[in-house]
Amino acid sequence: MRIAQIAPLTEAIPPKLYGGTERVISWLTEALVDLGHDVTLFASGDSHTSAKLESAWPRALRLDGAVRDANALHLTMLEQVRRRARDFDILHFHLDYYPFSLFMRQATPFVTTLHGRLDLPEHQHLFATFAAAPIVSISNAQRLPVPDAGWVRTIHHGLPERSLMPQPTKPTYFAFLGRISPEKAVDDAIRIAQRCGVPLKLAAKVDNVDREYFETTIRPLLRPPAVEYIGEISDGQKSDFLSGAACLLAPSAWPEPFGLVMIEAMACGCPVIAYKRGAALEIIEEGVTGFVVDDEAGAVAAVGRLAALSRRAIRKRFEARFTARRMAEDYLAVYRELIDAALGTFDAQRVSAAGKARRAKPTVVEP
Amino acid sequence: MRIAQIAPLTEAIPPKLYGGTERVISWLTEALVDLGHDVTLFASGDSHTSAKLESAWPRALRLDGAVRDANALHLTMLEQVRRRARDFDILHFHLDYYPFSLFMRQATPFVTTLHGRLDLPEHQHLFATFAAAPIVSISNAQRLPVPDAGWVRTIHHGLPERSLMPQPTKPTYFAFLGRISPEKAVDDAIRIAQRCGVPLKLAAKVDNVDREYFETTIRPLLRPPAVEYIGEISDGQKSDFLSGAACLLAPSAWPEPFGLVMIEAMACGCPVIAYKRGAALEIIEEGVTGFVVDDEAGAVAAVGRLAALSRRAIRKRFEARFTARRMAEDYLAVYRELIDAALGTFDAQRVSAAGKARRAKPTVVEP
Repeated sequence: MRIAQIAPLTEAIPPKLYGGTERVISWLTEALVDLGHDVTLFASGDSHTSAKLESAWPRALRLDGAVRDANALHLTMLEQVRRRARDFDILHFHLDYYPFSLFMRQATPFVTTLHGRLDLPEHQHLFATFAAAPIVSISNAQRLPVPDAGWVRTIHHGLPERSLMPQPTKPTYFAFLGRISPEKAVDDAIRIAQRCGVPLKLAAKVDNVDREYFETTIRPLLRPPAVEYIGEISDGQKSDFLSGAACLLAPSAWPEPFGLVMIEAMACGCPVIAYKRGAALEIIEEGVTGFVVDDEAGAVAAVGRLAALSRRAIRKRFEARFTARRMAEDYLAVYRELIDAALGTFDAQRVSAAGKARRAKPTVVEP
Repeated sequence: MRIAQIAPLTEAIPPKLYGGTERVISWLTEALVDLGHDVTLFASGDSHTSAKLESAWPRALRLDGAVRDANALHLTMLEQVRRRARDFDILHFHLDYYPFSLFMRQATPFVTTLHGRLDLPEHQHLFATFAAAPIVSISNAQRLPVPDAGWVRTIHHGLPERSLMPQPTKPTYFAFLGRISPEKAVDDAIRIAQRCGVPLKLAAKVDNVDREYFETTIRPLLRPPAVEYIGEISDGQKSDFLSGAACLLAPSAWPEPFGLVMIEAMACGCPVIAYKRGAALEIIEEGVTGFVVDDEAGAVAAVGRLAALSRRAIRKRFEARFTARRMAEDYLAVYRELIDAALGTFDAQRVSAAGKARRAKPTVVEP
């Protein structure tokens, strides 16, 4: 299949720094190439990929200080994709709603994965207007604010199967992994660990916008080694970090549409205790790969049940549910459905041109 | 003529506060209605217009604290315009490059007025890709960074003819009007007035981003009444303010693509002394409506030649060159050219469909 992946230019693919969306695009692209497909990746020129790279700008924009108007480059890239649309069987966008108007009016099937939250007031108006644009959710929870948008399937993210592996370490602490920011509720994690009398290690970045929050709210709570901040860790350090953790605490204060950190933990056999928000109920299998709880007290109670879980079983569930190959196969199924539907449309258009009945299809809007 | 004006949703049309682009769109729309055309204005619902208002969002976004993603609403509005494109003879956009891809691929002629500066590195790439999109410059100077873009004409802005009028006042001071920010070089204006021994009145807003600049750089230079800051003034106060000024000082430190304040001064018979940057040489007629100078010393020398200018003649030049009606008539000429060219294209397409030669036209790109 001739597949175009169209990525944001904000970060390289994969990203040089933090960037969940860009990591997922990289994993998906590599898995599709591994499965034998002819993949072209539209992305910044400093990306690294086994696919054909179509550079829409030499450098990732977050690191290119000269660029002030990212939209100018994203809309220029969409034009470049539009001109080459006929070279592909399917166009897969990761650019929010930007492609909708332009690609609803051409023949190559397209799909957009929405990577963010959708609960702003403008989203209602947006998705009511673009109900015909086919979109993939990264969790069912993500759909809740806009249930009537053009959802075609939920496809959970996946990691390369052997990128993170359980290590032979005795788990001795609780882990927190990700960003330190109010919506990640690190302070809840700290209190949970303290109530359980278990050391907590925080492997997290602090963005500039969250620097003050870190200094005023989180730093005063640090008590090494009981509550220890170890800074940001690389992908290469994650297997050790998560294998050494008795559980990952994910007490998110906002409805995260996915939560890569939860499947990274599972890849290392590490159970997850998460608050009942966003995608947690879909990702965690209660009593198998972790526990989904209502609050701090629920989390403390769940810690008492951790011993009943098998780290080997958790890794097996990761392999069954959250690999990049499974993600790629799910996307291929969607691509095939959209390609079949588009063929149907154009057959119907030919029939219509011959003066017979016409079938409406949602993915192609007449000019 | 059935004309659609498509405005940014950032401010109402006309704007409740500062907003040069939105004021120009309002003046143009009203002038087109006055000339008997059937005009539809796509804008925020709190706009006021004699045209038909198509509200794409109830409130101007700058005042709507709930909206975080203005692009979602601008791209939704473009889709709404696209669906109604056949209802119009011409679509006139004021949304930068946003409409290019979508409207190059449909039959109704369209044009975009670019209201901003075009000298960022991403603009080269953008306009090279969209060289076929027809655009209007607001000065010839604005074109310099991207000479090969799809320019169809320069149309200078215009004001409603009687919105500002000379008042019977004796001019006693120099005026500065606009925003206080580094690129407007208020400090130069202050030094010029002081070297001439003439009082300077600053009628200007201070944006939040420029508050520190104002406090640290400009406020220490204020010496009322010799150098007096009178705050932001309304349109209703401008006739008095500019009629009482011996000249307007416009020592801009950046290449402004137009400079409404210069024609506001002329409307009141007030001469302008401006630095040789951006559109100044096109707007000011040397020795008639003002002087274009290289620097502070040049400005001081020009003050000595102000007595040779006739305020009545300046007002006459305003009436001849910078009214909203003249602006509207210039746009109507562009609309007619684009409509004629589009008719040519579709004649050519019919010819082509019949198996004969095909003519390429820049404004419609084949799918």
